[in-house]
Amino acid sequence: MNQTRRRAKIGAEPDGTSPWAGRRRRPRDHELKRDAVIRAAARAFNERGYHHTSLDHIAADLGVTKPTVYYYVANKEQLLFECFLAGLTPIRQALGDAERRGGTARDRLNEVIRGYAAAIASEYGWCMVRAHDQDLGPEMRHQINALKSEIDQGIRRLLRAGMDDGSIGSCDPKITAFALAGALNWIAHWYRADQALSATEVADAFVGFFEHGLRPRARATPPGRSERNT
Amino acid sequence: MNQTRRRAKIGAEPDGTSPWAGRRRRPRDHELKRDAVIRAAARAFNERGYHHTSLDHIAADLGVTKPTVYYYVANKEQLLFECFLAGLTPIRQALGDAERRGGTARDRLNEVIRGYAAAIASEYGWCMVRAHDQDLGPEMRHQINALKSEIDQGIRRLLRAGMDDGSIGSCDPKITAFALAGALNWIAHWYRADQALSATEVADAFVGFFEHGLRPRARATPPGRSERNT
Repeated sequence: MNQTRRRAKIGAEPDGTSPWAGRRRRPRDHELKRDAVIRAAARAFNERGYHHTSLDHIAADLGVTKPTVYYYVANKEQLLFECFLAGLTPIRQALGDAERRGGTARDRLNEVIRGYAAAIASEYGWCMVRAHDQDLGPEMRHQINALKSEIDQGIRRLLRAGMDDGSIGSCDPKITAFALAGALNWIAHWYRADQALSATEVADAFVGFFEHGLRPRARATPPGRSERNT
Repeated sequence: MNQTRRRAKIGAEPDGTSPWAGRRRRPRDHELKRDAVIRAAARAFNERGYHHTSLDHIAADLGVTKPTVYYYVANKEQLLFECFLAGLTPIRQALGDAERRGGTARDRLNEVIRGYAAAIASEYGWCMVRAHDQDLGPEMRHQINALKSEIDQGIRRLLRAGMDDGSIGSCDPKITAFALAGALNWIAHWYRADQALSATEVADAFVGFFEHGLRPRARATPPGRSERNT
C-alpha cells in the first residue's frame, strides 16, 4: 500500500510530490489535482484490475478523502473514461503531426509508432488495452470507440500512402494496421517503467522489427548464402 | 494431464448442436457435455465480459439448469481457468511440434505462428487475451502464467535458433517475441469468425508481414528506385 502511494505520487508533479502536499497556491491547481486523481486511478486499475479497485483505494493512494476524489470526478466509470482519453489523445496527436510533416509515409508511420509506444508504455496503457469498454456506459463507450477507430483509420491511411509513394511494400492495410496496433498495444501487458529498457528503446526495437521483419537483412546475409537457402 | 487430453476434443460437435439435445447415449458423454459448458462460458465471457456473466447466463445459453452447469464445474472461476487452458494448450502443442520437425527455425516459427493465430481466432481467444488473471485464485493464476511463460520462452528459443541457422536476422529475442505475441494476441480483439477472412488467411497475412516487414520487398522495388530513396 505504501509502495502504491509512493508510486502514485511519482510523476504527478515534476518534483514527485502530491499536488495536495504543497503549501503554495498555483495556477491550474484544480487541473493538476484532477490529473493526479486520473493518474492514480490508472495506476490502481493497472495494479488491481478495474473491478477490484474502489474509489477508497484511489483516495488512500493519494492520501486524500473519498469526497475529495468525488470533487474531481463523478464516479469510477468516469475515471476509466478519463484514463482511456489520457492514453488515446497523444496517439491521435502523433497521427495529426504525421499528416502535417513531410518525408515518406514510412518515416511518418515510424514517428506514429514511436508516439504510440510511448503512450502505451505510460500508466494509461493498461486502461487503453486491458480495461473493457463494456464497463463504460453507451455514450462514453461510443466516444472511446470513435477515437480508437480514428487511430486505426489513420494508420491504414499511412500504409496506403506508403504503398503509393513506394516506401511501404504491398500489404493489406487493415490486417497490417491490426498487426502493428496489436504488437504496440501488447506493450501494456509486459512493459514496466522500472525495467532495463526505456520506452524509447522499446519503440526503436519495434520500428526496426516492423521495418525489416524476421528475414536476415540483405547486408547481413553471409556471402554465398542465397535467400532461397535461408 | 487429463485436462490437456480433454482440451483436444473440444469441437467434437461439428453440427453446432447442444450435446444435451441428442437422444442417443454416446461414449464420452460426460466429457462432451463438460466441453460444451466450457465453450458456452467462453462465448458468454467474450460477449458480456467475465464480470457481467453469471452461471445463469451460461445455463440459459445451453438450455440447461444452473445445477446442471455445477455438475461439470465448481464455479465461474474454474470456467475461466478452463477457457485459458483450452486456448493455451494448442499453442503449446504447436511449439512442441515445431521443436520436433525439421527445416529452418524461421519455417518452424511460421508454423507456430499459424497455430497461435488459429488458437486466438477460436472462441477461447477472448479469455486468453482479454480476461484478467487477477480473476483467478493464486494456484490457477500460477498455472496459467507458467503456461504463458513456457510459450514465450519457446518463441524466444526459435528466434535464437533462427539467428544461429541464419534464417532469422539479428534481433532482440525478448522484444521480438513480445511483438509477435502481441500482434497475434490482438487478433482476439478484432477477429470474428463470421467475417470475410478465415483464420488461415489471417495467419498467412501475419506470417508475410512478420517475415518481410513494411519495406518494399527487393523484387517489388521498381527499377531505378534505390532503397535509399524509399
